[in-house]
Amino acid sequence: MITTRVHNFNAGPAGLPLPALERAQRELLDFEGTGMSIMEHSHRGKAYEGVHNEAIKLIRELLSVPDHYDVLFLQGGASQQFAMVPMNFLPPGRSADYILTGGWSEKAYQEAGRVGAVKVAATTAVDKRYTRIPRQEELRLDADAEYVHMTSNNTLFGTQWHWLPDVGSVPLVADMSSDFMWKRVDVSRFALIYAGAQKNIGPSGVVVVIAKKELVQSARKDIPTIFRYATFAENNSLYNTPPTFSIYLIRNVLAYMHEIGGLDEVERRNRQKGDLLYGAIDHHHDFYRAPVEKESRSFMNVVFRLPTEELEKKFIAEAAKERMVGLAGHRSTGGVRASLYNAVGIESVERLVDFMKDFVKRA
Amino acid sequence: MITTRVHNFNAGPAGLPLPALERAQRELLDFEGTGMSIMEHSHRGKAYEGVHNEAIKLIRELLSVPDHYDVLFLQGGASQQFAMVPMNFLPPGRSADYILTGGWSEKAYQEAGRVGAVKVAATTAVDKRYTRIPRQEELRLDADAEYVHMTSNNTLFGTQWHWLPDVGSVPLVADMSSDFMWKRVDVSRFALIYAGAQKNIGPSGVVVVIAKKELVQSARKDIPTIFRYATFAENNSLYNTPPTFSIYLIRNVLAYMHEIGGLDEVERRNRQKGDLLYGAIDHHHDFYRAPVEKESRSFMNVVFRLPTEELEKKFIAEAAKERMVGLAGHRSTGGVRASLYNAVGIESVERLVDFMKDFVKRA
Repeated sequence: MITTRVHNFNAGPAGLPLPALERAQRELLDFEGTGMSIMEHSHRGKAYEGVHNEAIKLIRELLSVPDHYDVLFLQGGASQQFAMVPMNFLPPGRSADYILTGGWSEKAYQEAGRVGAVKVAATTAVDKRYTRIPRQEELRLDADAEYVHMTSNNTLFGTQWHWLPDVGSVPLVADMSSDFMWKRVDVSRFALIYAGAQKNIGPSGVVVVIAKKELVQSARKDIPTIFRYATFAENNSLYNTPPTFSIYLIRNVLAYMHEIGGLDEVERRNRQKGDLLYGAIDHHHDFYRAPVEKESRSFMNVVFRLPTEELEKKFIAEAAKERMVGLAGHRSTGGVRASLYNAVGIESVERLVDFMKDFVKRA
Repeated sequence: MITTRVHNFNAGPAGLPLPALERAQRELLDFEGTGMSIMEHSHRGKAYEGVHNEAIKLIRELLSVPDHYDVLFLQGGASQQFAMVPMNFLPPGRSADYILTGGWSEKAYQEAGRVGAVKVAATTAVDKRYTRIPRQEELRLDADAEYVHMTSNNTLFGTQWHWLPDVGSVPLVADMSSDFMWKRVDVSRFALIYAGAQKNIGPSGVVVVIAKKELVQSARKDIPTIFRYATFAENNSLYNTPPTFSIYLIRNVLAYMHEIGGLDEVERRNRQKGDLLYGAIDHHHDFYRAPVEKESRSFMNVVFRLPTEELEKKFIAEAAKERMVGLAGHRSTGGVRASLYNAVGIESVERLVDFMKDFVKRA
């Protein structure tokens, strides 16, 4: 069975750990002897509530989430968070700062602008391309802003923050969709973190939100109930029917992460994978070219170019024949992109690096 | 394997057809020889797009959806639709009519009231309980309303519309979450239908919306992009990452429904189940009591009472021992509720009816 699995470098939805999927497969018709699938259980019943609470507990434990933060499960993807954050925290007459580091932070900024007043605190765009994270001294922060929004990792261009901006006493909000739980982060530095599950911890259809309780309680109350973070906080994310099976799969992935040693081990593996691949690119720098500045390189999405677009196409096609899939860059950027999310094994990266070496020789 | 499965009378999330689950189980690690689970595929790739489009096509075919209607997949449950409907279609200075027939229609009404002006066109509540659907002559319709909202089936009290209200030229919007695709409906009578998938056609985490294209295009444009139906219509519900695995499961359920003969056969089975259970209740009317007026009885949620609450508890507990689960009434109403959604087999209802007969003798 295992031998049929491909090397999955998809940018998201992405690969999941095989043990988490195998567990789902075993239990699909009969969850823990209850005679039904977990997706056929009531979200108000003991069986599902056990799974739900275990998933929340695992996020709390793995990330050492402080007690004064809520851990919530929402729907609608990061795209819905682009609207919900300002709906909750940006009242009329106030403004919020956005740091632009790629296509997704641009979208977050644009959507917030449909809700309230927004300012660009920094942008590293040159000719619509982003090849680096800004430096602290480049940030034009408004001390009176309601919050500062950042995108911790940028899937399109392959950049990632490797330090946290100093935003003073202004709440820091981060879209961590594409590098959530790739390593430990100091949650207390953030007022709110949101992350679509479909890169590092599960299938699509769930967004994890980690937010300071104080902030959640201070949010606007005059918006529809379903868009208030407080609604989810006050009901343990069971105000309405949650996406039960997707949360169950997240539980399986988190349990597996816990089993292998938690986020320290996850980070060790992720750094090993990234170092290996960037090492190969740098070693063959006369053939492969990484457009991102070294200190801004993403460990999640490794973007690189070949001498010509024709060679890039050939590279992607030949890799696919050797069961390495998902290597095409984003349709807006082109090039090659290998996404090395948590579930990508070192053996897949070794396989890719071997292929890259061989491809140079043949080209 | 099959013998371990229980008789699942859950009110939702509910049981799914075994063949749809078995198909998911078989393909869980390797979808159609691609070497990965469908949930690990990119939502922009051929494999997933095939599934996505097949699910839409099956809804169109099974329900004979006219070409001038969009079929969309959204997230956030019916609860999010309670807000999205007025956000899209209820501009300032205008109002909408709501027909109240239960707890869910009350919620829809309240949420719309947070967005704009709403009127109660009818309510059948007596002492906060709803035991019937209103009659046409009870509807106080505003000819100038932006839309009329109805809830086609009411899970809490077990009532269901068995006719469609005449609303003149005002667009009719229906929450069909709890009886979607239980039988054919004349889609052309509605301007917009929304339905959470987790009762009749899949797991939780997806909402199906069927809407007149003209209406979708006429909606407000000054709201966040992710809340506009037009965003989903213009992008074939692929504006952002959809809940891919949940939609895949819907595809499996719909394919099974198609295989057994479509909605005519689904309706035949549902009527047979409902007739059998209501028949048993009426036959033992000195013991079991159905509080809902006969012409308003739901074929999806059969609510009944026993002579005392103590007997109800005993009934539910003993039934559970015989592997019949999900029979407790909603926490707000009490009593017994057997939900007979599409995936509940006639053999489960026969088993329940036998148990009921036996219980009367023993009580």
